[in-house]
Amino acid sequence: MSRFWSPVVHRLSPYTPGEQPKRENLVKLNTNENPYGPSPRVAEAIRGELGDGLRLYPDPAASLLRQAAADYYGLKPQQVFAGNGSDEVLAHTFCALFQHDRPLLFPDITYSFYPVYCRLYGIDYETVALAWDFDLLVDDYRRPNGGIIFPNPNAPTGRLLSLDDIERLLRSNTESVVVVDEAYIDFGGESAVSLIDRYPNLLVIQTFSKSRALAGMRIGLALGDEQLIDGLERVKDSFNSYPMDRLAIVAAVAALEDEAYFRETCQRVIDSRQQLATDLRNLGFEVLPSFANFLFVRHSEHDAAELAAALREHGVIVRHFNQPRVDQHLRITVGTPEENREFLKALGQVL
Amino acid sequence: MSRFWSPVVHRLSPYTPGEQPKRENLVKLNTNENPYGPSPRVAEAIRGELGDGLRLYPDPAASLLRQAAADYYGLKPQQVFAGNGSDEVLAHTFCALFQHDRPLLFPDITYSFYPVYCRLYGIDYETVALAWDFDLLVDDYRRPNGGIIFPNPNAPTGRLLSLDDIERLLRSNTESVVVVDEAYIDFGGESAVSLIDRYPNLLVIQTFSKSRALAGMRIGLALGDEQLIDGLERVKDSFNSYPMDRLAIVAAVAALEDEAYFRETCQRVIDSRQQLATDLRNLGFEVLPSFANFLFVRHSEHDAAELAAALREHGVIVRHFNQPRVDQHLRITVGTPEENREFLKALGQVL
Repeated sequence: MSRFWSPVVHRLSPYTPGEQPKRENLVKLNTNENPYGPSPRVAEAIRGELGDGLRLYPDPAASLLRQAAADYYGLKPQQVFAGNGSDEVLAHTFCALFQHDRPLLFPDITYSFYPVYCRLYGIDYETVALAWDFDLLVDDYRRPNGGIIFPNPNAPTGRLLSLDDIERLLRSNTESVVVVDEAYIDFGGESAVSLIDRYPNLLVIQTFSKSRALAGMRIGLALGDEQLIDGLERVKDSFNSYPMDRLAIVAAVAALEDEAYFRETCQRVIDSRQQLATDLRNLGFEVLPSFANFLFVRHSEHDAAELAAALREHGVIVRHFNQPRVDQHLRITVGTPEENREFLKALGQVL
Repeated sequence: MSRFWSPVVHRLSPYTPGEQPKRENLVKLNTNENPYGPSPRVAEAIRGELGDGLRLYPDPAASLLRQAAADYYGLKPQQVFAGNGSDEVLAHTFCALFQHDRPLLFPDITYSFYPVYCRLYGIDYETVALAWDFDLLVDDYRRPNGGIIFPNPNAPTGRLLSLDDIERLLRSNTESVVVVDEAYIDFGGESAVSLIDRYPNLLVIQTFSKSRALAGMRIGLALGDEQLIDGLERVKDSFNSYPMDRLAIVAAVAALEDEAYFRETCQRVIDSRQQLATDLRNLGFEVLPSFANFLFVRHSEHDAAELAAALREHGVIVRHFNQPRVDQHLRITVGTPEENREFLKALGQVL
């Protein structure tokens, strides 16, 4: 607390990211990183960008990346916004598109950064309860609102909403922006990007931190109607003209170009997810069907927080959320087959 | 314009960064980049960080960099804030420390991003006129305010304020935060970092984009009392937990470690500045005494905008600000001796 702080600072309740441990020998299944590294083309592209050129500012518009993403998704570059990780893209989205008189709507169980942004920008919000099985019921969002946001698949549940459901929501909600946060879409879901040309109030947000294995580089995109993107650009150019550094821009382009590597590593994660779900069910866990690179599980005989603590003692970190409705669940990132085996071994000692 | 935008977006007037031209053969003296590249240790450090590790999130606290900067400046890590370029650090500063009832004060001629931040955060501000010779008169800031900010040396004038003047201002202004934006301090000025332990309302902001030749990497610091830094951290953790990517963190640490290279390249820029000032005076320019890596000049017989346009025709870009009091000035970044010669040659053809 300080008398020098702006009043808003006293009201903030900052987001707590998952632990990034200093110990190297931990099996790290707590922050949904990709168990495989990025495409080898990424390091190659970065090496090519090193040298005296780093003295020069990057292209403030990240045009190369916007063009590459537009080509990839069948959009125009003016329908693409690029930022310093999807968390920054989300922050600008809350600022540019969600500061309205009516409340923002999002699920009661979801990405815990959403209410944090609301406090930063003074946005009123209402949470909409997921069904008993954590299904997102789009009809429950038919109420006055200044915007709607949800991840698809949802986090931390991994539940997927169909494109039909999303379109039904968009048809019934035309007066405010609907943001589909697709951080985990590449692990088996279908992107809403195909709906962009028909719904001017749809914004799709993606990240390179999960399926493209570049959490360490901070790259996020927003895809949508040109006017929505223009609103984001205006906020970005009032905040930081150059949010993406030179290396992040070329890394992102290289990652988009290596489609074969992308497909293969996503499929490996999906395969491991299926195996891990089976193995966990065999150990007595309830496992929600997941379309993400993590599983959301509970065990009827073991307290989740105690399990997480015991696993950490055995060198495995998973994520526990101390929050109503899910405080008996654990979110487990799908690792490599070896990591998953180590995790199961630790579980065997703990259960 | 879009009905989906938050009302604040309609009120913004985004910052216009200097041109980053696509043409390679231009002499680029328009955005105050360092004419020399970064320390070779930077590329080495980045190469060492490439590989599968990029799949993992960076340390959200950038602890390595905060420790290195603390050691460098004789501070504690808790007195250091790190961000994605000093523009982001400034944005968080305006949000965390300048949203008060009383107006923010800054010079009438200064970094043109300051009023942009004010519109983003709804901050009332008053500009304080510089003297006829662009001198900043600290006594003119003795009036009710919610904060004070100025660059030192000032931009685009290059004029330096002495540490005595800054301390006089701090003694008379104890109830609001005073931010000294030291983007150009390493080219001959004396940093106010030495005053931090005595003035809990002093925040010093630095960038790696100028003296450390890393504009392409986006690295900025804020240095000040722990409570001010804590306020910035709370805003950062409500906006983007991981603003600095893995490569930027190691690049910044490597740059701080190579003091010899830093000193030598700064001195070369200072030497070139003296030579360029002499050459420009010989061509009939008035040249303000500069402590930055640029010169602010005017020619009594030539319109500044026309001069800038003519220079561009001859392959040299300099910066012209279409703004009262300075619309007959040009801001010219100090280049390498070769670039400065090309600039002078182009001037010879144009005058």
